[in-house]
Amino acid sequence: MRLKRFYISASPLCAPVRPLVTLTTDFGLTDAYVAAMKGAMLQVEPALNMVDVTHQVEPQDIMGAAFVLRQVIPAYPEGTVHLAVVDPGVGSARLPIAARFGGHFFVGPDNGLLSLLLEGAEPEQVVVLDKPAFWRSEQPARTFNGRDLFGPVAAHLASGKTLEEVGTPTEKFQQLHWAHPLSDDEGVQGFVVHIDRFGNCVTNISREVLEKNPRSLHAKCYVGSTIVEGVRKTYTEVPQGEPLAILGSSNHLEVGVNGGDAATLLTIHKGSPVSLVYGDE
Amino acid sequence: MRLKRFYISASPLCAPVRPLVTLTTDFGLTDAYVAAMKGAMLQVEPALNMVDVTHQVEPQDIMGAAFVLRQVIPAYPEGTVHLAVVDPGVGSARLPIAARFGGHFFVGPDNGLLSLLLEGAEPEQVVVLDKPAFWRSEQPARTFNGRDLFGPVAAHLASGKTLEEVGTPTEKFQQLHWAHPLSDDEGVQGFVVHIDRFGNCVTNISREVLEKNPRSLHAKCYVGSTIVEGVRKTYTEVPQGEPLAILGSSNHLEVGVNGGDAATLLTIHKGSPVSLVYGDE
Amino acid sequence: MRLKRFYISASPLCAPVRPLVTLTTDFGLTDAYVAAMKGAMLQVEPALNMVDVTHQVEPQDIMGAAFVLRQVIPAYPEGTVHLAVVDPGVGSARLPIAARFGGHFFVGPDNGLLSLLLEGAEPEQVVVLDKPAFWRSEQPARTFNGRDLFGPVAAHLASGKTLEEVGTPTEKFQQLHWAHPLSDDEGVQGFVVHIDRFGNCVTNISREVLEKNPRSLHAKCYVGSTIVEGVRKTYTEVPQGEPLAILGSSNHLEVGVNGGDAATLLTIHKGSPVSLVYGDE
Repeated sequence: MRLKRFYISASPLCAPVRPLVTLTTDFGLTDAYVAAMKGAMLQVEPALNMVDVTHQVEPQDIMGAAFVLRQVIPAYPEGTVHLAVVDPGVGSARLPIAARFGGHFFVGPDNGLLSLLLEGAEPEQVVVLDKPAFWRSEQPARTFNGRDLFGPVAAHLASGKTLEEVGTPTEKFQQLHWAHPLSDDEGVQGFVVHIDRFGNCVTNISREVLEKNPRSLHAKCYVGSTIVEGVRKTYTEVPQGEPLAILGSSNHLEVGVNGGDAATLLTIHKGSPVSLVYGDE
Repeated sequence: MRLKRFYISASPLCAPVRPLVTLTTDFGLTDAYVAAMKGAMLQVEPALNMVDVTHQVEPQDIMGAAFVLRQVIPAYPEGTVHLAVVDPGVGSARLPIAARFGGHFFVGPDNGLLSLLLEGAEPEQVVVLDKPAFWRSEQPARTFNGRDLFGPVAAHLASGKTLEEVGTPTEKFQQLHWAHPLSDDEGVQGFVVHIDRFGNCVTNISREVLEKNPRSLHAKCYVGSTIVEGVRKTYTEVPQGEPLAILGSSNHLEVGVNGGDAATLLTIHKGSPVSLVYGDE
Repeated sequence: MRLKRFYISASPLCAPVRPLVTLTTDFGLTDAYVAAMKGAMLQVEPALNMVDVTHQVEPQDIMGAAFVLRQVIPAYPEGTVHLAVVDPGVGSARLPIAARFGGHFFVGPDNGLLSLLLEGAEPEQVVVLDKPAFWRSEQPARTFNGRDLFGPVAAHLASGKTLEEVGTPTEKFQQLHWAHPLSDDEGVQGFVVHIDRFGNCVTNISREVLEKNPRSLHAKCYVGSTIVEGVRKTYTEVPQGEPLAILGSSNHLEVGVNGGDAATLLTIHKGSPVSLVYGDE
């Protein structure tokens, strides 16, 4: 007999560990979409624990969704199901898929988002979701697969179904790639990939890129209307209102202002170029 | 002995099915109101599972709240309690009510919202909430019945109390009606009732209206700055950037743009007229 | 053997009372921050019940966060952990603290927020969080203590750890004070501290201040572009579109418009002065 995953708990007395699903969509917070999807999921697994990552991904911004979800996954326990529905191709021939990688599960349309989460790594398994028995209805609404297909399958996986049960193994899935920064002897050329709620400007220059060339930790950083020098460890290393570069919590170089909104104050936008220029030493 | 509803579970080992309440309000997400109401509910029933539908209904927009909640209910299991607090009359003589219909429960002020959910059907039971023993305090704050009255009653219903226990049966409750489209031999005249997060424009022309006259599936649809022909099945049937009419996930005609924001691109507003005109065949 | 708090339940059959944490931050709803913090908390305590107060505190607005959380706490059961992370000093020498007061727990940076919740009362205990064994990692990210330190400690407290286990007792913590209104024989001089989602303008004039001088209940109230007379009990005491003063659900004087947005209609801002002037009687 196969026990459902959430009975296997470290607690001595029967406190159940509820099956865990995170939700990332562009559905917004004013329409019926998120709650309808959650209802369909609770019909499958009433004990489900659903954690919203964000529903405010820019409409149909697959990279934006992947950018946020990629930072979230490492904070979650193995076995978590990550449901990500940003689905410009809903109703078309794009396939619904699910996957396992690093002990986590992914469910969503085959739109390239999975490959962005993997960053070049191989998934442990990918399946095409072709078993309507695990859907809300055999004929999902052609404009709302989140409620009728992806949500229910995510709930089934969270409550212990296997990938083989809910789909058919495949080798193929859409490939998208993060734009990596360019490096040479004189510096690193990247760009701003995300402006957060505080106006901090997250770049595509990763910790690895910085650590490969220690000179980058003391480089001049040209971005927006400012030039800052060196990579700081905390915002408070510079006076209030002053700009700085810092290695952010997502392990990428960020440009911020201590106590201020860097994007506004320094005229930085998503897509703005960021140049690290090494000095003559 | 009456067992609480959430002990009755299909699971073999004691995983409790938590009592389920959905929440629809105009309280917003920046004030203390939603969390205060949830605290009052958890005081009644600590195992409560609360799912937010939306708290961003336009202030005091009863029809807007009903429009969203009406789409959500079919995705939820029987026995779910739907708490809907949009309450322009708070503190006045308007009565607090609860009801059962189609196996679901409704709790909220008697402002017409219940009748909009029913769409002409008879509820199984309606009660006036006149038993302060089930409220947070005998004297609810005159400006915040959500925390002091509606929330606690919803939690009591979810955890197994009956309508008769928490209130007194009544026959009367406020009646509001959806504005239905006009149909004749030449076409259908409706309007836009909701613009969703993607800019899709949902009309009041339902699947039933369309199916009653098959010619409407090939009609010309005049709306905003465009004319589209025929009802599509998926967005991707037209090229990127092109407008289309489609039967949406809420079973009403919607006007969208493949990959774009129809409301902005086609100058369509909530309330904009939508005309389906049959051709000469 | 110490039982975890959530096994101690009033329910007869083993329905666990889940440990309860409320969350108040300025992290917003579009970034990875809230979900990453929740993941780190669920790693500590998978049965955790997390209720969002708001994540839309204005960036680094400690008083704004305290204003909202102060209204929420009384609605929650004893033993609830209130996690409040508004952290302009993250990465600096400001200390991480936790406290117990009135049977509730507080966790957050030592930025004065705790003292605003206490309003002059003494906490039962305050500790400095200096035990990395209860953190996500011994070296928390210098820009994101919410995920790496505060969240995990809040989860440990909710699941039954004591303050002495997670920290070291201290007497000192940052003191901030609410600006109280000035009263004399002629009236009360306060100001608007919060505009809510409905445009209601909450002042710093409390029920106690009003009740100390019963003349204030009939005073003229000067605010923005209007003068209203007397304190009402419900919005509907005045006609639609008319302004009024009312004792709000937070036990402070509010200025509103029946069915309208007072802030917009009456040109009132956060910080606008509010004068109660007693008449000659």
